[in-house]
Amino acid sequence: MKNSFGTSVIITLFGESHGPAVGAVLDGMAPGIPVDEGYIAERLRLRRPCGSISTARIEKDDFSILSGVFNGRTSGTPICIVIPNEDARSGDYERDRALARPGHADHTAFEKYHGFEDHRGGGHFSGRVTAALAAAGAIALGALRERGIRVGTHIARCGGVDDRPFSDLNADIAALEQMSFAALDPEAGERMRRAISDAAEDGDSVGGILETAVTGLPAGVGEPWFDTLEGLLAHMLFSVPGIKGVQFGGGFDLADARGSEYNDELFSDGGTVRTRTNNSGGVNGGISNGMPVMFRCAVKPTPSIFKTQATVDLFKGENALLALKGRHDPAIIHRVRAVVDSAAALALCDALALRYGTDWLGGVGCAAH
Amino acid sequence: MKNSFGTSVIITLFGESHGPAVGAVLDGMAPGIPVDEGYIAERLRLRRPCGSISTARIEKDDFSILSGVFNGRTSGTPICIVIPNEDARSGDYERDRALARPGHADHTAFEKYHGFEDHRGGGHFSGRVTAALAAAGAIALGALRERGIRVGTHIARCGGVDDRPFSDLNADIAALEQMSFAALDPEAGERMRRAISDAAEDGDSVGGILETAVTGLPAGVGEPWFDTLEGLLAHMLFSVPGIKGVQFGGGFDLADARGSEYNDELFSDGGTVRTRTNNSGGVNGGISNGMPVMFRCAVKPTPSIFKTQATVDLFKGENALLALKGRHDPAIIHRVRAVVDSAAALALCDALALRYGTDWLGGVGCAAH
Amino acid sequence: MKNSFGTSVIITLFGESHGPAVGAVLDGMAPGIPVDEGYIAERLRLRRPCGSISTARIEKDDFSILSGVFNGRTSGTPICIVIPNEDARSGDYERDRALARPGHADHTAFEKYHGFEDHRGGGHFSGRVTAALAAAGAIALGALRERGIRVGTHIARCGGVDDRPFSDLNADIAALEQMSFAALDPEAGERMRRAISDAAEDGDSVGGILETAVTGLPAGVGEPWFDTLEGLLAHMLFSVPGIKGVQFGGGFDLADARGSEYNDELFSDGGTVRTRTNNSGGVNGGISNGMPVMFRCAVKPTPSIFKTQATVDLFKGENALLALKGRHDPAIIHRVRAVVDSAAALALCDALALRYGTDWLGGVGCAAH
Amino acid sequence: MKNSFGTSVIITLFGESHGPAVGAVLDGMAPGIPVDEGYIAERLRLRRPCGSISTARIEKDDFSILSGVFNGRTSGTPICIVIPNEDARSGDYERDRALARPGHADHTAFEKYHGFEDHRGGGHFSGRVTAALAAAGAIALGALRERGIRVGTHIARCGGVDDRPFSDLNADIAALEQMSFAALDPEAGERMRRAISDAAEDGDSVGGILETAVTGLPAGVGEPWFDTLEGLLAHMLFSVPGIKGVQFGGGFDLADARGSEYNDELFSDGGTVRTRTNNSGGVNGGISNGMPVMFRCAVKPTPSIFKTQATVDLFKGENALLALKGRHDPAIIHRVRAVVDSAAALALCDALALRYGTDWLGGVGCAAH
Repeated sequence: MKNSFGTSVIITLFGESHGPAVGAVLDGMAPGIPVDEGYIAERLRLRRPCGSISTARIEKDDFSILSGVFNGRTSGTPICIVIPNEDARSGDYERDRALARPGHADHTAFEKYHGFEDHRGGGHFSGRVTAALAAAGAIALGALRERGIRVGTHIARCGGVDDRPFSDLNADIAALEQMSFAALDPEAGERMRRAISDAAEDGDSVGGILETAVTGLPAGVGEPWFDTLEGLLAHMLFSVPGIKGVQFGGGFDLADARGSEYNDELFSDGGTVRTRTNNSGGVNGGISNGMPVMFRCAVKPTPSIFKTQATVDLFKGENALLALKGRHDPAIIHRVRAVVDSAAALALCDALALRYGTDWLGGVGCAAH
Repeated sequence: MKNSFGTSVIITLFGESHGPAVGAVLDGMAPGIPVDEGYIAERLRLRRPCGSISTARIEKDDFSILSGVFNGRTSGTPICIVIPNEDARSGDYERDRALARPGHADHTAFEKYHGFEDHRGGGHFSGRVTAALAAAGAIALGALRERGIRVGTHIARCGGVDDRPFSDLNADIAALEQMSFAALDPEAGERMRRAISDAAEDGDSVGGILETAVTGLPAGVGEPWFDTLEGLLAHMLFSVPGIKGVQFGGGFDLADARGSEYNDELFSDGGTVRTRTNNSGGVNGGISNGMPVMFRCAVKPTPSIFKTQATVDLFKGENALLALKGRHDPAIIHRVRAVVDSAAALALCDALALRYGTDWLGGVGCAAH
Repeated sequence: MKNSFGTSVIITLFGESHGPAVGAVLDGMAPGIPVDEGYIAERLRLRRPCGSISTARIEKDDFSILSGVFNGRTSGTPICIVIPNEDARSGDYERDRALARPGHADHTAFEKYHGFEDHRGGGHFSGRVTAALAAAGAIALGALRERGIRVGTHIARCGGVDDRPFSDLNADIAALEQMSFAALDPEAGERMRRAISDAAEDGDSVGGILETAVTGLPAGVGEPWFDTLEGLLAHMLFSVPGIKGVQFGGGFDLADARGSEYNDELFSDGGTVRTRTNNSGGVNGGISNGMPVMFRCAVKPTPSIFKTQATVDLFKGENALLALKGRHDPAIIHRVRAVVDSAAALALCDALALRYGTDWLGGVGCAAH
Repeated sequence: MKNSFGTSVIITLFGESHGPAVGAVLDGMAPGIPVDEGYIAERLRLRRPCGSISTARIEKDDFSILSGVFNGRTSGTPICIVIPNEDARSGDYERDRALARPGHADHTAFEKYHGFEDHRGGGHFSGRVTAALAAAGAIALGALRERGIRVGTHIARCGGVDDRPFSDLNADIAALEQMSFAALDPEAGERMRRAISDAAEDGDSVGGILETAVTGLPAGVGEPWFDTLEGLLAHMLFSVPGIKGVQFGGGFDLADARGSEYNDELFSDGGTVRTRTNNSGGVNGGISNGMPVMFRCAVKPTPSIFKTQATVDLFKGENALLALKGRHDPAIIHRVRAVVDSAAALALCDALALRYGTDWLGGVGCAAH
């Protein structure tokens, strides 16, 4: 597959930044899952540019559900969500079409699509497409919540500032749902925002590290080879623009640890097997162990900066200089976190539907009639 | 899919550590690729336990190709490689079947397979299965080499010791093919081995970080969403036992960098677009940019250690203590690197065959007859 | 996958008969393929109800392309086509929701979706969804034509009347593109229409047999096992509502033939291998042989009839009688043929892109700029 | 995928007629399913050449299970079955390598694999590979039986002779399991065998029609578009060598029927919805309706005949004459029926595991220990 992900629950993304719309088709969701359009709108708000630290493009993110939802619940058929593009000033982008923006996909899009790509505003590579991913993911997040599975992401590090670690996971996840800037420690959040503003003043940008927790996932989900839970999640997560690293549990942080430090000792919690530490990030041998699934994503700094950069004129094949104008985010990490939640939720719904069948995430019993 | 990976070039793994054999089916390789059994044997040697720092299990790794190779070349049909298990002392493992080994998949296998799993020696989760992956990957590595694409992995860090960075990539990759312990700096290698031995003496184990370079990959391979080159590689790599983190280019290391530091400026190298730095690891927007693809994998310390650990009796659901006996690697990172090469090569063959068609990796023209 | 088909070129369908819209996402089409909206409209006209022999529902089939087309050509990214529903009189269908219509999917939808399905007008099972399939297929048909591959379907039999066989395939296919009722022999067509009208007067319906020819397909496409060309096409074709049989070449018609009659003798046509007969329907061992691919589809009579039928009240589980009212086609075979062309074209584009790479169907060279 | 089929339960075939072995990997079967090697052997016997009407090649079909079975039950991991080739007289086939046998895949294999294919005895296209499919399918048949689902196929027509129709399905299926020649009416079977012998005496061959019944399949399995139950089964069935047509229920036979004849009226059988007739073959809208799934396959006459046939020298591109020698079946339909059972069972296991989860087909509770 290409712009699709999943085996039993499948998400397909479409749309270009300056085309008529972006959107998603979400297929395979069980019938009977409540679909709360207000919650989708909330989730879209979490990834929307906020205040002075984000792009000036106003994204209204009004969405329409064209199919697959009936009487407020999933019907079991493909759900198509469309988000029309409104405030697209293509002029901003038209000027330098031939000049590949460093760090962007302009050059690779040209190699792949031979100039037929819709280059305006990054086209299909635009972060704008993540609005559709966030919207579809909101349905997945809602379905998981009905099953007691929660997903939340905070900005673990940004601009050299560390957030406090997760502590009470479910409480933290609930709090994150309400935050426009996802730092668990408000003071750290304030310092991160300052670092972003500082970068913006320099015409520069910053990245950072996101940390995600998934609670309530049953043990036994994932496969030993290839469709490991880590592999499925990483496959999905690396498609979120800007993510350049994914690690589970100790990951790179415990590269120097010894086995006696790394191994998670097990104990019986009233018959349920649990571990005292969680360096494995909730996954052993590719399969969930019933502990929270914990992972981190490295988010690179936004590539759009206002410094003059060396580049190439793709059509002439000659060296050139590029000075970007227009509106650009000095950071996207605070927006990406909402996308990561959605992306993870979609991958988890897929793994769960494969494991337990296509009805598992769905409504109990039969529709009222 | 489950124990399979790929869309056009597909690898399927089978086998248990103490069953009759492990093996792989490699489907979709173009016809006419030379298959050098000597090279497969060499690659298997690279992942074999070496000397005092590895397990005492002697793995002969004699393999048979049951199909798909004809007159020394791929025929285009599925290639089945079987590696019989010989020196399997199940007794070593029988003793504590009910006691889940911390850091291993015993508990998660039990959750997934309900006790029907072949637990002996880790069964299907055993690193032994990577011999089949390495063998199939050797064919993929050979096919890529015919197309000027090379893959090599060194131990970037182990036991707190850093290897020197890659310098001349193709020379380094060629050198790594000959090394039994893949440190580019021999002195660093010596110190790593000492760290492994030290851990072994303590009944403990170590992990580390692998770094891989892929040279010669054409620009334009990968998809913007979901089947990004990073996502495909990470999906594959996370199935290699012990890998808990994957990053491309700057990854987590440049979490604090600004965009002006991170962006790779472009220049025209006689018409070919190249970048001065390679913080993107050769991938932008999910698509290869023609620069070397660079990634790092975090390898956790081997979970089998000789210290007494707290665990659970899976059948009784009660707390217990476990003291492992038998033979166990104090490190696997030096073995895993050969598996990573193979895993990456298989994923790349798949992406290339999808991009350029099923003949692209194959023999030129028609078979002699 | 579910409501998707394909490996390299992938079609996803969404929408319900009485929801806001039906539509399709077509992913994996090569960049640079001309997209002629007029041609899409023509193809939609071919599947639209025509005159007195079809349903009174007026389907305007105005479509919007939301993505993936730029400057009149495919950009290489997913193409989303939306066809809003306009003239939907749900009232017609509301009356008997609980009463499963014999021959329809009401009962099976209920078993699968537990009553959460949008039942109005057949919901996602409605033939209305084939408008989206036809539209996406029109792009595929156009792409194939650029490569010299043509697809055409005639009504081989309807209401007990046989059409004349295909003779000059390319001329016949060209003629079929212009016909609102696809009988190659106008007189046979007239008799078929009369048979349909007769059935309509009886409150009854008819089916028949469609025959499809594909010319220009290169030899060597398809796989020996599972992804045979026949299997891929049949998989796709059986999703067209009403199709209950698919055969290639001689199929069931030559069940009594001997090998000496069935085998297609080969000859060299200036170096190109061809066969004198085409009982294999252009496929041997699952792989195209360069001859026209010929297949037939059995189309069952439209299930909506105006005779009282025995059925079950799905909610009460009790026997009941059903007398349909409203507007219904006495035949759909003349509309289905346009869908079959599209369905086949999509499956062929997929097989070709897999075989020859993702650019093969695309525009030559680079986009003008 | 290529030589693989399935989404949750996946079968992969490998092997060449005159290579070391043929085999299959069956992945995704639930853990705890009893694996009866005697039953596998029985099923292999059913597809083995029988007596004077079959090829003289003695196929011992000794198989080994290399993985995935532990203590007589599936362990949940991939099951690799290998059937070594023994009595392979390549000499028989070497003589005319360049001369494409009409009706065989020699020419198309050459187009696809460019002469690198193992041509001996048909190589990977050989019916020999169906032994592996039959063996893997035997495990699937056994798993289905544990769930009350039975599959059986009889020779509905051969050499112009009709068998009696199915009557008591489960009794007929049980009887078919014991028959070496699968005609329900012994007299019809005798006449079919005579027709086969007559054809053999003429150096010719015959085909026919197989009919399959599946009982006990729950309602609600299959998807409305693309992954319809018919599409999935047909996709699988068309990979069985010789099958050129697949129809469900009325199929082509009722092409002239009217809706009032074709529609299956429904009734409540103690709350369970059933139909009085079964012209839909147990599938409506792509989804099983709980009635027996009934389908027919057209099997072409064996292409190997002993009459001189016109052909092409593939290497020289010149016309030539071919007179086959060696041993060849004058009919395979009586052997194919066992393969059809297996193929259908594998596709059904896949659909069921997707629908109800990966444990559904498995052993109840936890393994004894």
